[in-house]
Amino acid sequence: MMRTRPLKVALLGCGVVGSEVARIMTTHADDLAARIGAPVELAGVAVRRPSKVREGIDPELITTDATALVKRGDIDVVVEVIGGIEPARTLITTAFEHGASVVSANKALLAQDGAALHAVAEENGGDLYYEAAVAGAIPLIRPLRESLAGDKVNRVLGIVNGTTNFILDKMDTTGAGYQEALDEATALGYAEADPTADVEGFDAAAKAAILAGIAFHTRVRLDDVYREGMTEVTAADFASAKEMGCTIKLLAICERAADGGSVTARVHPAMIPLTHPLASVRGAYNAVFVESDAAGQLMFYGPGAGGAPTASAVLGDLVAVCRNRLSGATGPGESAYAALPVSPMGDVVTRYHISLDVADKPGVLAQVATVFAEHDVSIDTVRQQGKDGEASLVVVTHRASDASLDGTVEALRSLDTVRGVASIMRVEGE
Amino acid sequence: MMRTRPLKVALLGCGVVGSEVARIMTTHADDLAARIGAPVELAGVAVRRPSKVREGIDPELITTDATALVKRGDIDVVVEVIGGIEPARTLITTAFEHGASVVSANKALLAQDGAALHAVAEENGGDLYYEAAVAGAIPLIRPLRESLAGDKVNRVLGIVNGTTNFILDKMDTTGAGYQEALDEATALGYAEADPTADVEGFDAAAKAAILAGIAFHTRVRLDDVYREGMTEVTAADFASAKEMGCTIKLLAICERAADGGSVTARVHPAMIPLTHPLASVRGAYNAVFVESDAAGQLMFYGPGAGGAPTASAVLGDLVAVCRNRLSGATGPGESAYAALPVSPMGDVVTRYHISLDVADKPGVLAQVATVFAEHDVSIDTVRQQGKDGEASLVVVTHRASDASLDGTVEALRSLDTVRGVASIMRVEGE
Repeated sequence: MMRTRPLKVALLGCGVVGSEVARIMTTHADDLAARIGAPVELAGVAVRRPSKVREGIDPELITTDATALVKRGDIDVVVEVIGGIEPARTLITTAFEHGASVVSANKALLAQDGAALHAVAEENGGDLYYEAAVAGAIPLIRPLRESLAGDKVNRVLGIVNGTTNFILDKMDTTGAGYQEALDEATALGYAEADPTADVEGFDAAAKAAILAGIAFHTRVRLDDVYREGMTEVTAADFASAKEMGCTIKLLAICERAADGGSVTARVHPAMIPLTHPLASVRGAYNAVFVESDAAGQLMFYGPGAGGAPTASAVLGDLVAVCRNRLSGATGPGESAYAALPVSPMGDVVTRYHISLDVADKPGVLAQVATVFAEHDVSIDTVRQQGKDGEASLVVVTHRASDASLDGTVEALRSLDTVRGVASIMRVEGE
Repeated sequence: MMRTRPLKVALLGCGVVGSEVARIMTTHADDLAARIGAPVELAGVAVRRPSKVREGIDPELITTDATALVKRGDIDVVVEVIGGIEPARTLITTAFEHGASVVSANKALLAQDGAALHAVAEENGGDLYYEAAVAGAIPLIRPLRESLAGDKVNRVLGIVNGTTNFILDKMDTTGAGYQEALDEATALGYAEADPTADVEGFDAAAKAAILAGIAFHTRVRLDDVYREGMTEVTAADFASAKEMGCTIKLLAICERAADGGSVTARVHPAMIPLTHPLASVRGAYNAVFVESDAAGQLMFYGPGAGGAPTASAVLGDLVAVCRNRLSGATGPGESAYAALPVSPMGDVVTRYHISLDVADKPGVLAQVATVFAEHDVSIDTVRQQGKDGEASLVVVTHRASDASLDGTVEALRSLDTVRGVASIMRVEGE
């Protein structure tokens, strides 16, 4: 039973993702209509450069006035693939106020203002869907907020940035340094001219905030996410990781504390064992590992970016939102009822791999070990290597709080016999 | 805004899965209420043995009269975890007719009668959800029917039976034979006393039918699925696989033909390259690889069975169905509009690994190669190994139809110089 009046879709942005959304809406119109129960029609496309030739898109649909488009009043769904905070935020808000539902791929905006946008959606009876905002094509938001809605998620551990995974994978497999690997990523189009958002972990932190919020039914803002980039990871770190049977990944980690009373969210490079499923995630792929009470360990893997994969996620949301409009219902909105406190990084408990440059003389190890003990950080293994009066000490700890580790490192730096702290890396996924 | 009248749930079956569903409904009642927007209440539990002590379940709720329970008329959701065709089919039908929605974990029933059950659900305005029917806790049905609703799925390739994966993994890692590995699986509780449904591929075939139906928007019945068990896989096959850089998995494969005009579904053991993500799926874990036009390659990984994981999937569906009831809507029903023909096994195109015992004399290879050529099966590699007047030939083909391969093997068997066909195995995932 097919309704004949089409659902009208306004597309905000027609870059790599937007043009792919428009293309699939056109070429797969019959399939989309059959799956939705009504035809969907592209009613307008807001762009910045109207003169650019856009194959397959009726030039009549192109406009530079995005505000007028979302205010039309006859738009069922606004698809926002502009990115960034403004004008996306105002346009989405205006779209809800004019009766539309919204599908967005905007991780930065969702991480910063998700709660406010959900509130506007709810006030106006609209849907806000954003599967494409995290891990591209990988179904992750929907499984977390729907499939696991009857379970208790304890941890989300993921590779959610393809650019940095490409760089780290290149360093791992070829022995290249950071700059060399970044240059190759840039040349191949995996890294942008200014790679800051990726390599400094801002992009992953936004995704961590979104994932933590959904997983723990708690508002987690971008500022709540501890963030450390991967620009200081060296070839020597990879060599150390290999000796431990590990590799290095930039991870987004959202955890419920052991007592269940608080949560943490963080992004940083970490060693993970080669036997962990995330260790074999290669190139620009993404993967997210989810641990929950009843389901146990789940992993979701796939392309984390790119026009077509992101469009796949956008279109899945578009179908769901259109179905909701036809049935007069809305899908799940924000779920923040648990309202757990978000603890600072110092409260995170994990293991650490620390490389120290030390004087090669008797008693150094005893001194170092004493510092660890004084800060309640228990040592798992120590490896000592001498070279020309200098020596290096590699310490791997048992689980300890980040605050204790910070205190330990500060004290180590003040020892005369410690020439320097060459690297500190967390060890995850064990 | 919480509704106070609770939604009423009837549980059919209280075995490993059912008791876990009841337990979580009780211990996580507040979370479920918050996520649904109304409390859910266990209104009745139908069992076969009422005398059995069931911890945490009010004895007043226990009944042996499942029919009366689903006919009560005040039940919002019936959770069916009995399994098997009858009485489950009649109970589910009756439940719909009395106004309930249904959450089921029953793969056999869904594979055999999914279309009819969906029809009854639709006629009565009920929801039929069954995430737990395929791959236990792994969110797979929902991603396929919702997240990928705007994409075109071309292939689903999965390890969907934990018992057989445990056995094959054991054979792979220890060199054990089939019987030895099966015995261990039985001793550890991974295999049932009668392992037929698992090792002969019936269980996986039911899941393949369900997955193919959803992936291709086409009705695929259990009888449409080609099925070959894994009882004839030998240690020698694993040795051959290793020489090719492969391992052996029992795979459920649902494919759209290259021309898009038909689909196939099949279950059989196959060699897959060690570099394929499915190759590293160990023990009783399940994983499903999905290839689609826009999203590319996705993988979903997790525990494929067990009480708690299956309960997680059931409860996710329960939350969704309860939300739908509160909003007066229903979720996506059967989508079979594409109605593509399901082709027979002979039309499947793949590669083959064939071991032949042949006479060790000149001209044999030429004879064998001629038979392949006559059947239009192109050879990729041949390896010949002599031993005391006998020899073995291992042939790996390029892609050819299963019908051509069948013809080739029949002709090979009639050659005087071919003493026997030691094994034939398909090579997938390349």
